[in-house]
Amino acid sequence: MAANRTHPLDSFFAPDSIAIIGASRDAQKIPGLLLAFLRKNAFPGAIYPVNPNYAEIHGLTCYPSMASIGGPVDLAIVIIPARAVLGALRECAAVGVRNAIIISSGFAEEGGDSTGMQDAIAALAQSTGMRISGPNAEGYYNELKRVAATFSPTVDVKPEQPRLLATTRRIGIVAQSGGIGFAIYNRAKALGIALSTVISTGNEADLGAGEFLDYLVQDPATDVILLFIEGIRDTEKFLTAARRAAESGKPVIVTKVGRSGAGGRAAASHTASMAGWSAAYDAVFAKYGFIVSHDLDEAVTIAAVLTTTPRPKGDRVAVVTVSGGAGIWAADAVSAQGLQVPELSEAVQAKIRGMIPSYGSPRNPIDITAQAVHSGGLQKTLDLLEVSDEVDIILVVISLSSETRMPFKQPELTPLMDGQRKPIVFWSYTLPSLYARNGLAESGVVVLSGLTHVAVALSQLVNYSTFSLSPATATNPALENLAARLTSATLSEYDSKSLLRAAGVALPDEVLVTAKAELNEAVARIGLPLVLKIQSRDIPHKSEVGGVRVNILTPEQAAFAYDALLANARHHRPEAVLQGVLVAPMARPGVEIIVGTLLDATFGPMIMVGLGGVTAELFRDVVYRPAPVSLAEAVAMLGELKAAPLLNGFRGAAKADVPALAALIAQVSQLAAQFKNDLAEIELNPVLVHPHGEGVTIVDALVVRKNP
Amino acid sequence: MAANRTHPLDSFFAPDSIAIIGASRDAQKIPGLLLAFLRKNAFPGAIYPVNPNYAEIHGLTCYPSMASIGGPVDLAIVIIPARAVLGALRECAAVGVRNAIIISSGFAEEGGDSTGMQDAIAALAQSTGMRISGPNAEGYYNELKRVAATFSPTVDVKPEQPRLLATTRRIGIVAQSGGIGFAIYNRAKALGIALSTVISTGNEADLGAGEFLDYLVQDPATDVILLFIEGIRDTEKFLTAARRAAESGKPVIVTKVGRSGAGGRAAASHTASMAGWSAAYDAVFAKYGFIVSHDLDEAVTIAAVLTTTPRPKGDRVAVVTVSGGAGIWAADAVSAQGLQVPELSEAVQAKIRGMIPSYGSPRNPIDITAQAVHSGGLQKTLDLLEVSDEVDIILVVISLSSETRMPFKQPELTPLMDGQRKPIVFWSYTLPSLYARNGLAESGVVVLSGLTHVAVALSQLVNYSTFSLSPATATNPALENLAARLTSATLSEYDSKSLLRAAGVALPDEVLVTAKAELNEAVARIGLPLVLKIQSRDIPHKSEVGGVRVNILTPEQAAFAYDALLANARHHRPEAVLQGVLVAPMARPGVEIIVGTLLDATFGPMIMVGLGGVTAELFRDVVYRPAPVSLAEAVAMLGELKAAPLLNGFRGAAKADVPALAALIAQVSQLAAQFKNDLAEIELNPVLVHPHGEGVTIVDALVVRKNP
Repeated sequence: MAANRTHPLDSFFAPDSIAIIGASRDAQKIPGLLLAFLRKNAFPGAIYPVNPNYAEIHGLTCYPSMASIGGPVDLAIVIIPARAVLGALRECAAVGVRNAIIISSGFAEEGGDSTGMQDAIAALAQSTGMRISGPNAEGYYNELKRVAATFSPTVDVKPEQPRLLATTRRIGIVAQSGGIGFAIYNRAKALGIALSTVISTGNEADLGAGEFLDYLVQDPATDVILLFIEGIRDTEKFLTAARRAAESGKPVIVTKVGRSGAGGRAAASHTASMAGWSAAYDAVFAKYGFIVSHDLDEAVTIAAVLTTTPRPKGDRVAVVTVSGGAGIWAADAVSAQGLQVPELSEAVQAKIRGMIPSYGSPRNPIDITAQAVHSGGLQKTLDLLEVSDEVDIILVVISLSSETRMPFKQPELTPLMDGQRKPIVFWSYTLPSLYARNGLAESGVVVLSGLTHVAVALSQLVNYSTFSLSPATATNPALENLAARLTSATLSEYDSKSLLRAAGVALPDEVLVTAKAELNEAVARIGLPLVLKIQSRDIPHKSEVGGVRVNILTPEQAAFAYDALLANARHHRPEAVLQGVLVAPMARPGVEIIVGTLLDATFGPMIMVGLGGVTAELFRDVVYRPAPVSLAEAVAMLGELKAAPLLNGFRGAAKADVPALAALIAQVSQLAAQFKNDLAEIELNPVLVHPHGEGVTIVDALVVRKNP
Repeated sequence: MAANRTHPLDSFFAPDSIAIIGASRDAQKIPGLLLAFLRKNAFPGAIYPVNPNYAEIHGLTCYPSMASIGGPVDLAIVIIPARAVLGALRECAAVGVRNAIIISSGFAEEGGDSTGMQDAIAALAQSTGMRISGPNAEGYYNELKRVAATFSPTVDVKPEQPRLLATTRRIGIVAQSGGIGFAIYNRAKALGIALSTVISTGNEADLGAGEFLDYLVQDPATDVILLFIEGIRDTEKFLTAARRAAESGKPVIVTKVGRSGAGGRAAASHTASMAGWSAAYDAVFAKYGFIVSHDLDEAVTIAAVLTTTPRPKGDRVAVVTVSGGAGIWAADAVSAQGLQVPELSEAVQAKIRGMIPSYGSPRNPIDITAQAVHSGGLQKTLDLLEVSDEVDIILVVISLSSETRMPFKQPELTPLMDGQRKPIVFWSYTLPSLYARNGLAESGVVVLSGLTHVAVALSQLVNYSTFSLSPATATNPALENLAARLTSATLSEYDSKSLLRAAGVALPDEVLVTAKAELNEAVARIGLPLVLKIQSRDIPHKSEVGGVRVNILTPEQAAFAYDALLANARHHRPEAVLQGVLVAPMARPGVEIIVGTLLDATFGPMIMVGLGGVTAELFRDVVYRPAPVSLAEAVAMLGELKAAPLLNGFRGAAKADVPALAALIAQVSQLAAQFKNDLAEIELNPVLVHPHGEGVTIVDALVVRKNP
């Protein structure tokens, strides 16, 4: 990161001078609030209020126009009625203002004419090079540089409430909702987490969430990023930023809303963004190792853990508690998140036993009892566990509600926290007092209060520590252009399989019979037992018209079935053009899997894998990733299926050929990515996965052309 | 409740006089703290410190012994070394003390001799009638009667921090952990929820969690109960209390810990309770409509909703928000919990549109914008929704972090809250200020802070509102005593089915063939196709020894299969005593279900139903209830299966015969309950559920005798 000290948005986030267009004396209204917050936070640069109605505001010279300022302006903040905004921006561009934030509402979120005004703003940014955030934005707050370019009351300075600061590492926040962006900051601040910058993106006429994310990823002052998304507009910039974050190991905690019907409906009208299809977002998040959270306090808790602890080497948690019941609860909570709470060795237990009362327990959860807090047993136990190789994470369970007594001595705790080789996390089952928060903050401790959030945060921390980004998959120049094979909107099974064969996908030997006279030869070639399937571009669902006959044991049965298939098709779909009957071998048994691809409106080609069959459909056991995926990513996808044990020899069954299945997934994902302008969907259903070493069989296949 | 004003524990929880055995002047130590809290909370009765080392403590006469008090004592609190406790209790009993709490530790939780001391305490309670809570308890706090019989710092009185009180309805808390019991109180108090009593149960030598629960259920001052359980000891009292709670419609929010391996291990050593098998606890909770929560803040949030709102008539939520992003998030969160967020009718939307700015949205989530707070649009929207029949619940999404500005006018909000016909709940996305909490408390509002918790609470509220307790199922006097049929520890399929037939369970006609000469007659009677299965009490898993042949189509195949079954059995299990070969019809197809019973160590007979097959096993889709269950409970169990749609015509399949399956479940549960002293297990696996009206087929059955 250090190499990348200058970023195009540096003058946006650390301006030397700020103009407030529409500045006001009234500290109850937005322009007045913004000016007040900017000054109370001690912005070190020049402030130029602009408003023809005032000569000065609270001791600052007020300018009638941008031109009258007469000096360079890095950032203009625009808070005037919507209809006047474009003119003001033109003035800004004319005098060389580098960046602008439009706080004003009344643009694309209202629809109609107002959308046109926003388009004109975007065009202005494009033509002049001036970067514009908003409209309908709540601005940003750069805590490190003391730039409060927002009217959010969360940045107000209250001298009687000094900033609680427990962390040296800083979070940065990008939010497609000012309310939520500053609420994240508000809650993080209450825990003592340091901030670099929080930015609300508004309608994103020019600058979007992806570009802001990219800034924070490259910002050396930002260690952990929180991201709140309704719908990404600058997709390419977002993906570039996501890859950079993954490559540099900077964690991104993301909340994506608009997942429900009602939420999606509202997102569309709120900041005029389309919430999109959540599964595609989750697939992208998974690819880049983003930590997904659906709760404000949970997200902030994860941020607290990431800013105060090193990465753990494993998932073994020591629960150190002063309350038996609270310790059991904590052990349950972390176990429920998939972490281990191993019983300690007799040697370690014996040492702990010497530090705690007889009615305590050294097993894990380690119940040191309230007594041991005051006798020094708590600190000694932590010191011992910190160097033990039997656990990877220490969760301290304690009551920190007291406003007069501290369970730790700072000279003992601070060196432990400073030298942390494994994460040490503190949960208070009573509400932590400000006194305790302040005291522990001096040792770099953030006191956490929600148990489930703590357990989730530890589990996410362990997962994040094992994440590694797969290298980008290259285009395969040897692949035949498949576009010419897409001769209809929906290909028949035969055509679909022909296309896949041309692309190098291994498929069983099958014969398309177009006249009954050819049937016997086809049967002889394929061998018994076999399957017959009607083929027509007009019949995508063959079973529904009685178009499939399985387990045909003799040539006579084959002849009979052939006639029946044609008769059924003519009966149920008299208008269908029939291509013939496909003669295919009966597949050997295997675990039934679905592999598919689709095009997402935001992120493009996606690959999907799921367990087949009706029960699995019920449990919606499906995993997506942006295509293409590497072999390793395909294996990881299979590991995320709830039904993964079925592939791994569940209940004494043979292990399935996961490598062959993963290879197929990677291969199909490559097709979807490389031919994303032609292919809309590939569906292989079912794919039978045979025992290890015996490969897979694609039983049925469907390819859908992209509408031109 | 009103009829039941006197309860045996009234003198325990509302004593006229309290003795503190082991009282001390040192307010840093437990005895001194307890005395200080008792007095600071203004206990209205007599306080008798007992300690031969002092003549007075802080102005109170200190007595050398219990006998020297010379007046009646309702409650003695014992805080002396463990070895002196029994003697002190004997003194108490001798002078007619009615109740005691033993705070002292060092009893059963230590094991060894210390367990014996606890047994002696239990025996003393039994022989004298004096009721004893503890040892190893943290006491109780009766907020209404101002009895602080505890050393928990959470009951300390701080005159500079007046009690925040938002609710008139009160919670009561029973906890098998003092730390957690008082932590629940601590967190509820911070939200402004009123308390009746919080009690920590300690080791429960005499008084147990079940009996305390029963007290709160019958306590007219308690409206909602929170229960924290490691393991129930007084099971019968607990079940009586649970039934009373369900019958009287008093909600119980329960947390059961010791669910994980580590948690269970710790619970065993902590208060010397066995955590037991969580599924049985959950089954009991489900039977009595208890609301299960795994998180402290979540549990308190549910309590807040239950104490401030009426029961909703349905699950349709209106989300009213001042922030677009926060409203979308809230809509997602409640939708994720299964609630509806319906779009409002055009008529209602039109009315709302008139109350909010043009850039707001009336659809639902209803984005009134921050502007509408000050213009009165928020209050008007709430008034409108309160009388609308399009929604059942109103969730207000707002920022309440300000310490100077209130978004509501009390004269407007109070009548709305007082007249609530549907739940109105307030979530602040920023951290609510104490100023806002106090202001809204005056209108009876508890401000909530955790979004997921709010969504869960609303969902639980809806579920609780639809709960109804099934009437108790009577013993069936007509049932033959089955004990005589339990001729071996594990019965063969044939014997198991014979027993079930004797108990009135419908089973297919089947024939046990004990010599090959009988085979043809049996085949003729059962009809083709059929199944042959080896029968032996020594072979519980027939498939594993090649002991089952299905789809036998001819008498010749039957003869061949018969020989093969015998040969396989002799080969794999030469020591097994063979009973014969069971000739059974091939079952018609159906949805594969497992029905079973078992005996839980804490709660006795349990009935289980689950989806059959390997995929379902992977998804652990099983529901338990205490046996017996009524037909309605059996139907409810089936509704709780994740795979329930498979029974209800999933993907165009025929609806299964749920009534027949429910009847079988109820019937089998009755057997398990009525013969719980003889039957350990019944397993019907699979049961095939045919299309509606065509019944079920029990394919295989296994009965296990209870070890005498």
